[in-house]
Amino acid sequence: MSKMDSPRKSRRSFLAAGAGVAASVLAKPALAGAGNPANQPPNVPEWSKSLGEGVAVRPYGKPSKFEKEVIRRDVEWLTASRESSVSFTPLHELEGIITPNGLCFERHHGGIAEIDPADHRLMIHGLVERPLILTLDELKRYPRVNRIHFMECAANSGMEWRGAQLNGCQFTHGMIHCVQYTGVSLRTLLEEAGVKTNGKWLLVEGADAAAMDRSLPIEKALDDCIIAYKMNGEALYPEQGYPMRLVVPGWQGNLWVKWLRRIKVGDQPWHTREETSKYTDLLPNGKARRFTWSMDAKSVITSPSPQAPIKHGKGFTIVSGLAWSGNGKVKRVDVSLDGGRNWWPARLDGPVLDKALTRFYYEFDWNGEPLLLQSRVQDETGYVQPSKAELRKIRGVNSIYHNNGIQTWHVQANGEVENVEVA
Amino acid sequence: MSKMDSPRKSRRSFLAAGAGVAASVLAKPALAGAGNPANQPPNVPEWSKSLGEGVAVRPYGKPSKFEKEVIRRDVEWLTASRESSVSFTPLHELEGIITPNGLCFERHHGGIAEIDPADHRLMIHGLVERPLILTLDELKRYPRVNRIHFMECAANSGMEWRGAQLNGCQFTHGMIHCVQYTGVSLRTLLEEAGVKTNGKWLLVEGADAAAMDRSLPIEKALDDCIIAYKMNGEALYPEQGYPMRLVVPGWQGNLWVKWLRRIKVGDQPWHTREETSKYTDLLPNGKARRFTWSMDAKSVITSPSPQAPIKHGKGFTIVSGLAWSGNGKVKRVDVSLDGGRNWWPARLDGPVLDKALTRFYYEFDWNGEPLLLQSRVQDETGYVQPSKAELRKIRGVNSIYHNNGIQTWHVQANGEVENVEVA
Repeated sequence: MSKMDSPRKSRRSFLAAGAGVAASVLAKPALAGAGNPANQPPNVPEWSKSLGEGVAVRPYGKPSKFEKEVIRRDVEWLTASRESSVSFTPLHELEGIITPNGLCFERHHGGIAEIDPADHRLMIHGLVERPLILTLDELKRYPRVNRIHFMECAANSGMEWRGAQLNGCQFTHGMIHCVQYTGVSLRTLLEEAGVKTNGKWLLVEGADAAAMDRSLPIEKALDDCIIAYKMNGEALYPEQGYPMRLVVPGWQGNLWVKWLRRIKVGDQPWHTREETSKYTDLLPNGKARRFTWSMDAKSVITSPSPQAPIKHGKGFTIVSGLAWSGNGKVKRVDVSLDGGRNWWPARLDGPVLDKALTRFYYEFDWNGEPLLLQSRVQDETGYVQPSKAELRKIRGVNSIYHNNGIQTWHVQANGEVENVEVA
Repeated sequence: MSKMDSPRKSRRSFLAAGAGVAASVLAKPALAGAGNPANQPPNVPEWSKSLGEGVAVRPYGKPSKFEKEVIRRDVEWLTASRESSVSFTPLHELEGIITPNGLCFERHHGGIAEIDPADHRLMIHGLVERPLILTLDELKRYPRVNRIHFMECAANSGMEWRGAQLNGCQFTHGMIHCVQYTGVSLRTLLEEAGVKTNGKWLLVEGADAAAMDRSLPIEKALDDCIIAYKMNGEALYPEQGYPMRLVVPGWQGNLWVKWLRRIKVGDQPWHTREETSKYTDLLPNGKARRFTWSMDAKSVITSPSPQAPIKHGKGFTIVSGLAWSGNGKVKRVDVSLDGGRNWWPARLDGPVLDKALTRFYYEFDWNGEPLLLQSRVQDETGYVQPSKAELRKIRGVNSIYHNNGIQTWHVQANGEVENVEVA
């Protein structure tokens, strides 16, 4: 294709041309469909002839048995133990922007604290006028806010700094999820406690065996943070911090302390393990970036991808992906089929919300030749997602965190997809 | 209280006054907390001292064991069998606007068809140029749309026509849920099939043992209907129509055919069982309204409610509720504490989307005296939710469907709540 001709198929040609989706249907009488098993007339299977399971037999539903491969997965060699490890969201199987609670990725430092809410307390103390100790029921008495936000681990895509490593967007980009949180604005509680004028930092600490703790600047705490007790309407799942977690919109997941039990107000950061030996970014000159909280704009094509190859051969093809920015809303996404030489605008579909996942699509006629698929997001601040080469020029290859470089998928002629790097 | 004084507590007074949430904390040294078990300092429970369960031990997560009462429930006496029955969403336990897939209410006519997607086909035929038979994989090749919509059974609140019957919003209003759907615009498929000029109605039919079928006018089909295969990102749950269902935004749930297998285009409606002996509204004059598809604006207070009494006594109290309209967006919600004599504006929180649930809150200082709680929604068309008396004046009491009258909860001095009627 030439540089100037868009490979994108217009809606009109998609619907009118025989080269589209339903070529096989259009080419012969569809209702006869002989010889093409996919085009047989509807049969009358057993489920159309007998009563199925009744209502409330499953008081809490679950997916079909035919979806048993749609699960969180871990990578055994990645960590020494499963208690201090990560599992990944199956992004390649999902659509829209809401992640179901059962598929939200996990990251634990001491395993899942299985907390009895009746025995859980949240303490707010330090440089405050009125220290507070709150039960979950007491927390629920404060005014509530509801926000849809993505949550991304700073180490998402971290294995890719030195080149293509993991073969599947579940593993390269699956340390992210997006749900609707309900809880109390942290600002409300801090105003209730009365932060003293010298209170500039918060220590936020979990009740898990790792007692995960981080320092949070007061400006962010007073801006948009939430102490959440619901996700997608229901109580947090245990692995997401039941009965309460911190929500720090747009900032790295490590700050979103789960099983939150303590907030101490101080006048300087605590320099905890998780903000010194971890969650800092080693640069080529030997110095390290610190307190790199915000997650810059990023995107990934979720299908086609290594775990979701093209099975239908050439013809009308849908590229589906996710874009997000820790600094606001997604403004636009572009897609390249040739490793970044030409870019075509993608279509954003569904809600485009502040610091939330945004779904994009790019539809085109695939000619069956190999592709180098990429996506590139621009957020409302004007920031454009960089290439991995641009990122490495500044950050080197010693980092683990904050790899938001453009991802490349190599689609082969047979439709299989692999994780590659382009110069 | 006088007619003119708002009982609503300002943010300022909420935070400053001792009468608010944290009265007990403010009244004594919080960190000592002796004598008040709820205000003990954080203890060091077992979950803070030992490793918890690791990642991906549950590849698909589930709620905490302490949330085992947050489930769909049915009413045994309501129907003759569980296969043709209904279970209800536990609205009183939920927040925000997204319903988790596992808690979405069920309504089956022949039980849950447990379908192997490899053996499922969707046929589009009748007055079309090019009949289509599509597999799920073929359906996924058409351009995708993502929409968040409520889905309400026309019989929701149907037991309440003749007076207060069921004690709990799960049962009075729980035949509703709201998720993000992903699928194909029905318009896209109808354009692909080429509807003939005399094609004015669609018969939509399920693959369940009841072969549930309804007539749908072509105007709605070409407007905003979706053939959905995902809800909240993942595949539809079996009880919600896996592998595909019809989404008919704003219209009664009975039209949202699950396990969708057939769409036939015709020139007039089919007058099926579900639109003649059922889903018609018998009026006082003996005539019945038919094809009353759209769900008019409605609201309900989910907490406090009979299953969610006030346990904290008088003081700062949060009223939480849901509002929706089949005709567009929610414009405003008002709350009454005295059975509709005085109304105060509620606060809408979170996304306000077209034909979607909208969360509202009303916060006030409860003086401990009995309340008659009501909510009243106005949608963007200007339509105002009627009282039950206004509704009965026009529709009588022989209807089962489309009861969108204002709900009253009687809050007693002890905080218990019951379903009542006011004149």
